[in-house]
Amino acid sequence: MIAKLVEKIREKDAPVVVGLDPQLSFLPHYLIDEAMRSHEEMPYGDEELTAVGEAVFRFNREIVDAVADLVPAVKPQVAMYEQFGIPGMIAYWRTVRYCHEKGLIVIGDVKRGDIGSTSEAYARAHIGRVEINGRTCRAFDEDFATVNPYLGTDGIKPFVKVCNENDRGIFVLVKTSNPSSGEFQDVLTKDGEPMYEVVGKKVSEWGEDSMDGEYSNVGAVVGATYPEQAKRLRVLMPHTFILAPGYGAQGATAKDLSGFFKEDGTGAIINSSRGIIAAYTKEKYQRFGEEGFADAARQATIDMIEDLRLVLHAD
Amino acid sequence: MIAKLVEKIREKDAPVVVGLDPQLSFLPHYLIDEAMRSHEEMPYGDEELTAVGEAVFRFNREIVDAVADLVPAVKPQVAMYEQFGIPGMIAYWRTVRYCHEKGLIVIGDVKRGDIGSTSEAYARAHIGRVEINGRTCRAFDEDFATVNPYLGTDGIKPFVKVCNENDRGIFVLVKTSNPSSGEFQDVLTKDGEPMYEVVGKKVSEWGEDSMDGEYSNVGAVVGATYPEQAKRLRVLMPHTFILAPGYGAQGATAKDLSGFFKEDGTGAIINSSRGIIAAYTKEKYQRFGEEGFADAARQATIDMIEDLRLVLHAD
Repeated sequence: MIAKLVEKIREKDAPVVVGLDPQLSFLPHYLIDEAMRSHEEMPYGDEELTAVGEAVFRFNREIVDAVADLVPAVKPQVAMYEQFGIPGMIAYWRTVRYCHEKGLIVIGDVKRGDIGSTSEAYARAHIGRVEINGRTCRAFDEDFATVNPYLGTDGIKPFVKVCNENDRGIFVLVKTSNPSSGEFQDVLTKDGEPMYEVVGKKVSEWGEDSMDGEYSNVGAVVGATYPEQAKRLRVLMPHTFILAPGYGAQGATAKDLSGFFKEDGTGAIINSSRGIIAAYTKEKYQRFGEEGFADAARQATIDMIEDLRLVLHAD
Repeated sequence: MIAKLVEKIREKDAPVVVGLDPQLSFLPHYLIDEAMRSHEEMPYGDEELTAVGEAVFRFNREIVDAVADLVPAVKPQVAMYEQFGIPGMIAYWRTVRYCHEKGLIVIGDVKRGDIGSTSEAYARAHIGRVEINGRTCRAFDEDFATVNPYLGTDGIKPFVKVCNENDRGIFVLVKTSNPSSGEFQDVLTKDGEPMYEVVGKKVSEWGEDSMDGEYSNVGAVVGATYPEQAKRLRVLMPHTFILAPGYGAQGATAKDLSGFFKEDGTGAIINSSRGIIAAYTKEKYQRFGEEGFADAARQATIDMIEDLRLVLHAD
């Protein structure tokens, strides 16, 4: 699956993933009002949740339609759907399907992680399948999932197994983009090595039997806000593809990103979520207005791609 | 909420939580067959997933009916529901509601964790609420959720805020029960301290403003399989309530558990999942047969409670 992602990035000349993180405050009011009038009845949660679930899906669909020709992939953040209960999860499920129909690779930002059979259940849920009465069923059916490494190899191996069985991939959290990520991730071990390097080397090792072209289907999450650490990790994990959140709203700029890529310009994909999907709320794009939210998202995506190309094609 | 849990443990004289982790292989076949014949149509996933979702709920309902008078709490493991997609999540949602109706405290074993607004969305999803058009909606509505600390304070604070607003609680992973948990959790820092102690002290600190009686609503997960580490953590985190998985199937026995409790016998709750819900598949309880799975679960629960009482009331 990582080979497919690399190929799609090359085709579109855009190492960019659009984060579909529909916070309530990002949804134009008219979408919620329309959904309140028209949604179908559903017995799983309040009417308001059902309407918002419907509004979230419509919001995503317009954004996906507006950016599908520009980018190789999208990354829905499941927390933003889970908060709306069953109707939210239905919006997530519909979004994944819709993105596949549009030819986009879907990175489920689920940050799951547990042990043994429980990790395997998460893996089946998101990038695998279950067999019931001899029939193969797929639950959420993303192409990649993000995974938390805190529980160690027992937690990761079941994901790797499911990746290998289904030609899917994972991105394991190594160095996250948030200000306090150093609290545990930067703690120096008695050998003077920061924890994120210990984890990074493990990620590289876990991915050895999952090579798919030049990279492994076992990738890493490294925050765009930590360029120095990324440079070091790029060397420590030569066959590990990097998913880098933190561009834009979280403060990272294109010039921070060169160290995430190899000399040939491959090796990483950069995520922007609210910088794109909520662009219409920003001064720079407010000319599009609330009803032009998808056009604003398209323009913000074009601008981000241009910005990255300046760095990647600098020489 | 932790005061309520402590009180219910005292009432029932049983620091025991039943893990509702319905792996497909634990479900009696007749339940799936019945559900295949009778389930309602649902447009969100294959027919088999819908039937299994229905079977999972019926399985849980019978077990809950059989153990509700014995224990204070249940702990559904969401991965086991997520693997069945939307129908699985509906079974999770119905299970939480049913357990509340039966007066049980529900610990959502979701091991979520992210940063900032994303962590807040997870917290709202599981132990909080969202406001839509002035109406308060609750998504999955558990009493406690388990949380992964790898992303640091940015990831935990939003959960703590939501706990405090809703009188709910969390259990943060500190030292997990699996064999490879030491890979990162036991790494010694340059000060000679294992990572799980660094995390444990943070958990204690994060919980300072969430006291509810003798304990904080911010608790910790410490595997029953690591009694020595638990003894140390019990001292480092005097106001932190411990959720301990790993009893039974994972190998911990009652005599391993005394160090998890304070001298007054409070301070921890011990989980057993497959040891109880799949008891009917074990030689010891096979006399109950497949259709007696709930009675077998009741007997296994009684046996576990007796086993723990021997330790807790030893002096």
